Formats: sequence, C-alpha cells, structure tokens
Amino acid sequence: MTLSTMTHLVGSLSGAVYDADRLWRTDPVDGRPLQARYDSQVAARTLTKAAMATRRTNGMWRWAELLPVRSPGRRIYLGEGATPLLSAPGAGRALDVPRLMVKCEGGNPTGSFKARGMAAAVSRAAELGASAFIAPSAGNAAGALATYGAAAGLPVTVVMPSDVPVAHRVESILAGARVLLVDGLISDCGLIAGRIAQATGAFDVSTFKEPYRVEGKKTMGLELAEDLGWRLPDVVVYPTGGGTGLVGMWKAFDELQALGLIGGERPRMVGVQVAGCAPIVRAFTDGQRFARPWEGARTRAAGIRVPGAVGDFLILDALRASGGTAIAVDEAEMDDAQGLAGRCGLGYVSPETAAALAAVGQLRSSGWLSRDDQVVMFDTGVGHKYPPPPDVPEPAVVAADEDDVDRLLNLAAGP
Amino acid sequence: MTLSTMTHLVGSLSGAVYDADRLWRTDPVDGRPLQARYDSQVAARTLTKAAMATRRTNGMWRWAELLPVRSPGRRIYLGEGATPLLSAPGAGRALDVPRLMVKCEGGNPTGSFKARGMAAAVSRAAELGASAFIAPSAGNAAGALATYGAAAGLPVTVVMPSDVPVAHRVESILAGARVLLVDGLISDCGLIAGRIAQATGAFDVSTFKEPYRVEGKKTMGLELAEDLGWRLPDVVVYPTGGGTGLVGMWKAFDELQALGLIGGERPRMVGVQVAGCAPIVRAFTDGQRFARPWEGARTRAAGIRVPGAVGDFLILDALRASGGTAIAVDEAEMDDAQGLAGRCGLGYVSPETAAALAAVGQLRSSGWLSRDDQVVMFDTGVGHKYPPPPDVPEPAVVAADEDDVDRLLNLAAGP
Repeated sequence: MTLSTMTHLVGSLSGAVYDADRLWRTDPVDGRPLQARYDSQVAARTLTKAAMATRRTNGMWRWAELLPVRSPGRRIYLGEGATPLLSAPGAGRALDVPRLMVKCEGGNPTGSFKARGMAAAVSRAAELGASAFIAPSAGNAAGALATYGAAAGLPVTVVMPSDVPVAHRVESILAGARVLLVDGLISDCGLIAGRIAQATGAFDVSTFKEPYRVEGKKTMGLELAEDLGWRLPDVVVYPTGGGTGLVGMWKAFDELQALGLIGGERPRMVGVQVAGCAPIVRAFTDGQRFARPWEGARTRAAGIRVPGAVGDFLILDALRASGGTAIAVDEAEMDDAQGLAGRCGLGYVSPETAAALAAVGQLRSSGWLSRDDQVVMFDTGVGHKYPPPPDVPEPAVVAADEDDVDRLLNLAAGP
Repeated sequence: MTLSTMTHLVGSLSGAVYDADRLWRTDPVDGRPLQARYDSQVAARTLTKAAMATRRTNGMWRWAELLPVRSPGRRIYLGEGATPLLSAPGAGRALDVPRLMVKCEGGNPTGSFKARGMAAAVSRAAELGASAFIAPSAGNAAGALATYGAAAGLPVTVVMPSDVPVAHRVESILAGARVLLVDGLISDCGLIAGRIAQATGAFDVSTFKEPYRVEGKKTMGLELAEDLGWRLPDVVVYPTGGGTGLVGMWKAFDELQALGLIGGERPRMVGVQVAGCAPIVRAFTDGQRFARPWEGARTRAAGIRVPGAVGDFLILDALRASGGTAIAVDEAEMDDAQGLAGRCGLGYVSPETAAALAAVGQLRSSGWLSRDDQVVMFDTGVGHKYPPPPDVPEPAVVAADEDDVDRLLNLAAGP
C-alpha cells in the first residue's frame, strides 16, 4: 500500500511554511491559497513508470504518493480519475487541428472533473477532523461535495445561484445536502457560505480557500503525462472559472519533473472564458498579475461564470510561464460548438467544454495553433446536467400505428 | 495488438451455424437472436491473467480477443468500459447486506451501460459495410447509438416514445441523429424503426435483433470476474428491460471458463423489474420459457419499460440456470431508493438503478439474500438524464446580500 509523502504546506504568495497535519484554510499571513509539498525523493522510490503500468485500479488514488491523504482507509473512492484521453479525429478535421485530443472528465462520479477535487478535499479534511462541509457552487461542485460528503457520512451544505440547473439541485438534495439558493452570483454565494461556515464551524471548501481540492484536480495533469507515454502535449486548452484544474496541472508537471518522470518541457496552457465573464482574459491582456472582478457576469456556462478567482495570480502565472494565452469566446460560438462536439462523436458536452472547443477553432484560425501542435482539450463535464442549447429542433411525433412508410421516411429525414 | 478470435455465429435457439464475417441480423431459421462464438484455445494464448494486469487503457477493448471487431482500426473507442466496481458500505449497512458492491456504469460515454453495446455493434456493423443505423430506444440507447454513429461518421435515426426525457432527445439531436417520436411504447417504436429500416436499408440495431450489442454488454461480466480477482460474486442484481446485459454477462462467464480463467461457479442472477412492467417476473413465476407481452406498461424507469423482450428465453434460462430469481418492486419503493442511493454516497442514480437497490433490500428482508452474500448490484446509468423523482423539496432562496446569520442558519437547516 503506497502512502502520501506530503511534508508541509506553503503559502503560495508568502512562502511561509505550515504543518501539513493540521486543518488549515488559506494562508494566515495574507489570505492567499496554501499549497501542499511532497518529498520527491521518497515518492520516486515507489512512484515509477514501471509501477504505474501495473496500478490498474483505484482511479486518481493510483497517485497516492502525491496526494494529501495519510491513511489509505480515509481515501474516499467513488470512481474518480483515470479518465480516457482520446484522439478526436472528427473535431480535429473540422477545426484543422489533426492532433487534437480530448481528456474526458464527464465519466467521473457526478459527471464532472469536480469529483477529483472534492474526493481529495473531503477525504483529507475528514481525516484531519472536519465534521461538516459547506461550499458555494455554480452547480457541479455542489453535486460532487454532496456526494463525497454523503460517502463520508458527514453533513454538507451547498449554496448556489438560484438559476442553477435543476439537475445540480436535485443531485445535491438526493445526496442529503442542505441546499440554499441565492438570488445572485457565485461570488455572493461565497460570502453567504462564509457566514454560515463561521457561525457553524462547517469546513468551507470554496475554491482555493483550502489546500486540497487543487491536489485532487492536479491528477488530471499527472494522468496526462502518463497517458502520453511520460511526455506532455504541445498545448493544453482548459475552460477556466476558478482555475483549480489549470493551476493543479501546472503544479503536477513540476512534481513529475522532481520525480524524474518528465523533463523541463511544458505545454502552452490556454485558459478559456466567455465574453460575458472574462476577468482572467482581461488581466492577461492588460498585463496584470491579479484580476479585478468582472461586473455583470453573464453566460449559460455556469461553471465559468466566476467573476473573481481567489487563485487569479496562480492562473495568470501559469499561463504566462508556459507561453500560453487566455481567450474569450462569444456565447453564440459556444452554443454552436456544443453541436459540433456532438456531430464529431464527442457526445453531449457541457457549455464549458463547448467554449474550449470553440477556442481551439479560433486559435487555429488566428494561427496561434499550428497544424502540427498536439493539443489536449479538457472536456470538463457532461452536458445533460445543463439546460439544452438554444434552438434545438423539435422532433416530429407520429402515431403508434403509423404504417405509411413514405410519411415515416419524410419525417425521419428531419426538418 | 490483440485480435478477435471470433469463429462463427450460432442461432441461440436453432443451433444453426453462420459465417461471422457477413452482416446478419436475427437467425434466418426462426428470427431468434444470433450469438458470436470464439476460439477459446487461441484466445487463451494472449488473454491471460498476467496480460490483463498490464492492459491499462482502452476500456472494454482490453478484451479484444472476445469481441467481434476484426480490425483494430475499426474499434470505435470513446471511453466505454473499465468502470469502477466499488464497495458500498453505506447502502450495505442500510440494507443489512454488508458485502454489497456496485458496478458503476454511469461513467461510460453518454452516461450509461448502453455505450458498451453500441460501441461493439456500430464498430462491427460498420466494419461489415453497414452505412446507416436505426434503433428504437427508451432513451439511453438512442444517445449512445447517435454518438457512436457520429464517431463512425455514419447517419443514425432513433425512434423514441414521445414522453422520453428531454436530455435523451437533445443528446441524439446534437449528435446529428434524426429523431422520430412515437405516441406509444418502445415496442411501437420497434415496429416503426423496422419499417424505416426495411425501406432505407439502414442497419437496425434493436436489442437482440443483431448479434453484437450483447458482445459489448458482456464485457461487464468479464470485468466483474477480473475486478474480483478472477472470482465471481455470490449474487448479481441487474435491472432488466431487454436483458442484453444479463444475457451478455451469463455468456461472458462461460467464455471465461472456456479460457480457464474461472471455474464452473456462477453467481445467482437476479432480474429486477417494476410492478408496472414485469413480463419477465411473471414468466419466471409462472414457469414459462417465453414471456408474453405486458399490457399497459407504466413506470418512470423508461429503461425497463419494455413490454416484450426478444431475448426473453435467454434471460429466463440464465435466471433459472443460475439459481437466481426475478423480482418486481413498486414504483414508490423505487422512488425512495433513489434517495437512499444518494444519501449513501452512490450519487444521483437512474430510476432503473434505484429499482435494483430496492430489490436488494427486499431480497434481504425476505431472506433470499443472506448477510454473508457478496452481492454486486449494477448501477446502469446516471440519474440526471431523467426527470427528478417526485417530491424533491424546493430549496429556500435568499437575497444576495443576506447577512442575518440566524436567518441563514435557519434556512440552511432545511425544511
């Protein structure tokens, strides 16, 4: 049984060092995110290429040496991680990016990449004594937290915008969570969750306000390297709301290098937002290290309707250090890309994923991506938890005993 | 690269032998299902326990020797298979079945076990020259066929009851399929699909009306044995509509035994239906080998609202040969079990899965299951593609600037 090699936590801006076996939230010095550090020499003894080739089960927990949970019995495993990395020849042809690949996160429990983060955060916080959880969420994080909390046998409260798709609400309620809806945005939900957390002592697992969700998310980056034969792609395209996944992957690459599993090469990291809420794109373009909050955020892609990200500088640092970029797509381009994804065999993807696909097309058109680039796009979650895109045609309805074949052929031929 | 060892097809009732490299639908002798047969001696050379321990990727195609696709390049892989088999301690405690496990099929592409069958059927039929596909569906099969058809670059038509949940319709339409809705049941859809297939030459992949969907589904049984260390559980509990999965698993066990990977032991197989549509339960109870169609089928669990199954005798044979049983649960018990699943950390499961969970509880209460039984229940698909269960409470809504903590605590405490 492989064990965590975590040594300490460090303030991501202050550099201050903290005991990893106490329950922290943000850095007491400056309120910025804390990050876990591992003993790469110890980890390298068991986490080898050969060993990984025979670790067939347990999803993201295959990477136990680089995860924060100490006791194997405290790992809450519901099937998260070890998602497929697929070639996407259809979409690649359509967008003239022949080496396009897709990492399919919709197969995670609760249908999105949020499962990885919540698996790590709930497991580790429960191991350190947390007895209740709370978080604000645009949707997928709520269902994931509720489900992992239920598996841990601990109470959960989730705070969501009142216009959140019904599937997320129902998922949370069926999992036994308390659900509070707010007539506002995710940022308002965050303030309200904070008030409840302070009054009740529930552990607040808001994005980047505790050290462990990013540790779960980083396993996307670990898997990416392994899936490509311990290499990294030329470009990673990632829909960016709170940015935990992007920051987590960037951290993962450094950890793999410290273990000697990859070299110093890095993909260009691309953060994708939508025109109606693009604080990271604005800060990137303006050369700012921190992103000021976006006013009047509006988009159907609830997961990237995040006006202000606590980890803004970590996102921007990674984009810049990698030679990457940040790009905002229009809402209508995103809607169209949801259909393109379906027609290319990528399935019913989320609006966030559709935004990423639209971004791939734009970056290719502008020449930022070349035909030769190996591009990995993240499909962060399934589409059926969201309302459908606009203008989906209404199918024809026929009687149960309709036997006029010409009529059937005509109707089946579509509008 | 491992290859298929398929040798021929055989009529499941007639025993007649057919060329496996021609495109067949049902047995020309009697219209019953055809089944693929493999060369177990050849397969046993490469499909060994040691080899499987190092086949980490490619999902269900890890079992290529026992799948019908000849050319590796014709395998359409979208991430199907290799789903987690999890201990379910919470549900096990609630139902007094301590060794309860769940095989989580919701992580497949398109969110259900239907992906396995369609991956095999579309890949193999396309390899044999099919240039268009059609199928009737209660929902999940439609989305899966549409998606695999899109990945194959071939046109798809799906015929669904008009009351099918909107997520299934949208998924099919986004994937570019023609969707026809029928004011009737899946059986009516089957007749209409048949008429269109005959007129257009589209290959009809209706359940058990071609030989390959069952080959994809059987990989659930292959994985089950491997996941349990090349043993089988005491009991398998499976929601049963068309029965492809149950029949496929039963076939898989024989194939594993022929390869020397397991012995002659078999799990007791349990087919679960709902009171509003229970033709297999009625035939099982009445001692019939064939099931007559159920009149006035009614249940929210669209996937098991199947009044008549073409493979009825194959299902009933497997249930009886295994010492298993067939059981119908009430609609309300199913609804309750959907909440139980969520509260136990199993996530937002489909109504069909909830029916299976309710059946586990009933079989334990009646003593048919003992506390010592290792029981594997199949979670066949995600719940968010369906309308929510009745009576899900409406969460409270608060203003974005609500800062009265007592009021927040009160509302967050739930109804």
